[in-house]
Amino acid sequence: MHAPLLTRSDIEATQRRINQHVHRTPVLRSGTIDGMIGAAVLFKCENLQKVGAFKIRGALNAAACMSPEERRRGLATHSSGNHGQAVALAARLAAVPAFIVMPRSAPRIKRAAVDGYGATVIECGTAIQDRESTMRAVLAEVGAAFIHPYDDERVIAGQATVAMELFEDDEGLDALLAPIGGGGLMSGSCLATRAFSPRTVLYGCEPAGANDAARSLAAGTLLQNAEVSTIADGLRTNLSARTFAILQRHLSDIITVSDAEIIAAMRLIFERLKVVVEPSAAVPFAALMQQRRRFAGKRVGIILSGGNIDLEQPYFTRPPSG
Amino acid sequence: MHAPLLTRSDIEATQRRINQHVHRTPVLRSGTIDGMIGAAVLFKCENLQKVGAFKIRGALNAAACMSPEERRRGLATHSSGNHGQAVALAARLAAVPAFIVMPRSAPRIKRAAVDGYGATVIECGTAIQDRESTMRAVLAEVGAAFIHPYDDERVIAGQATVAMELFEDDEGLDALLAPIGGGGLMSGSCLATRAFSPRTVLYGCEPAGANDAARSLAAGTLLQNAEVSTIADGLRTNLSARTFAILQRHLSDIITVSDAEIIAAMRLIFERLKVVVEPSAAVPFAALMQQRRRFAGKRVGIILSGGNIDLEQPYFTRPPSG
Repeated sequence: MHAPLLTRSDIEATQRRINQHVHRTPVLRSGTIDGMIGAAVLFKCENLQKVGAFKIRGALNAAACMSPEERRRGLATHSSGNHGQAVALAARLAAVPAFIVMPRSAPRIKRAAVDGYGATVIECGTAIQDRESTMRAVLAEVGAAFIHPYDDERVIAGQATVAMELFEDDEGLDALLAPIGGGGLMSGSCLATRAFSPRTVLYGCEPAGANDAARSLAAGTLLQNAEVSTIADGLRTNLSARTFAILQRHLSDIITVSDAEIIAAMRLIFERLKVVVEPSAAVPFAALMQQRRRFAGKRVGIILSGGNIDLEQPYFTRPPSG
Repeated sequence: MHAPLLTRSDIEATQRRINQHVHRTPVLRSGTIDGMIGAAVLFKCENLQKVGAFKIRGALNAAACMSPEERRRGLATHSSGNHGQAVALAARLAAVPAFIVMPRSAPRIKRAAVDGYGATVIECGTAIQDRESTMRAVLAEVGAAFIHPYDDERVIAGQATVAMELFEDDEGLDALLAPIGGGGLMSGSCLATRAFSPRTVLYGCEPAGANDAARSLAAGTLLQNAEVSTIADGLRTNLSARTFAILQRHLSDIITVSDAEIIAAMRLIFERLKVVVEPSAAVPFAALMQQRRRFAGKRVGIILSGGNIDLEQPYFTRPPSG
């Protein structure tokens, strides 16, 4: 199977297409972190992006690639997370309705965010089948255009603009680390690296409790997560055949990390970089901390994918003693 | 009394002097916050600055203005907070020793940060007199150069570069809000506004539990805080005659806020802007939230002064119920 290749000009055209509606997110650094890791670490802050995550790039690009007729009856997706917010905002910017299928169990705060962008939320049960059958029913009824969270070339092209911007800001990266959930961001990062900085070595980063990508790459065939157990709620999904093919061709390695490593990395990012990251976004930095020897003296790019956390969750507070 | 005026070229020269050692911090925005406030709100993120606060600018400028002979035996200050870290880093960059007098009661985390920059920490009692007598003893013994946290023109000039950069990035600000502790940042902001954007209206922002500036401006004479009670630990100090004179001449008004308003503002900054701020840094945004009518439809600059918090402090976690 051949991975669909995006050229430099494809990605540049994508960037121009979404440009006016996304933030050019800053690249942050910390002298203390560089010293701890023994490497130059550059953090591309997509947690500071609109909707608090890179997802807006892919959703916007998918919407912008549609004809007005195609998107006229609205945009739709199923997601309990950042992609739902992204599609809701993309629809608002295109002045069309949004229909977001969310499990009844979704956190109130995520539901409120989607509501806040003016989307119609359709509740469903928590099983994957419920989600899919509800989605099909909604699409049939309202005729909206479906935007998959990652198994879509337009979405992958949108996510590729993250790494492209990073390479524009810094030409000397030896390595790039990004998180893997369904593989949309990682695939986009692979294709952008191939196009703009082919000498940069690519590492995928995954929670140990949702390691379908690591196992799939080791086996040479697409495997699913049997059970999923990780604090990184954005990375619980499985690769698709499309994203697997891209990762198989371009990744040098996958590094898996424990939940304890994720929380330690989150904490350092809060304390030293002073930005809010969700657990999924701390996974690449957790991988770098774990494997610091491998990256000694290198110039390393890290994608901080999102910052949507529940502040009432006591990630760092000591359990009450006594 | 005449305030010492910094000209455009004084502030530009200061910026060139410290440039290579400070971050050009980003200006962040949130569509949701703009919508809530009914204004365009631009956040200048000095919480993302080196040492996690604007303080490095003033300390670096003071050190850079000294002759090599003057600073040869080291830099010294008394501070349990961000200025201590700033002087420690400024000394390290100048390759001279640092002597930081800190009360024995200072949080371990702040002490560790100062240690981390290679400074010598000298402990003292918690009373102001202890601090001052210990400082005098240290200066007499080691012959280091003292850098006051705010009552120093070189320090004020350094802090002025924050607002200067903001005006460079955005020429259309109707108002600028900054926090007032000892008045160093606010004085620098006043002088930079006068020099670079004279039509911008200046507001000082202060916690109700340490409102010496509000009372001093109302009385037309310099008053001290009798007792201090606020979560904003960076703003508990009193103005000096020097900073009072500058504020009196340039401020349009002072807005005071409660600790509850400060925490609500901190929370919104975490949730929507995705950056970590300390309570003191949330004070201007708390003021803007309180007085949103006054700023309706305006273009408002907010200085986020620092991000050094103790993550184990449960600012946002619900008290355990039951």
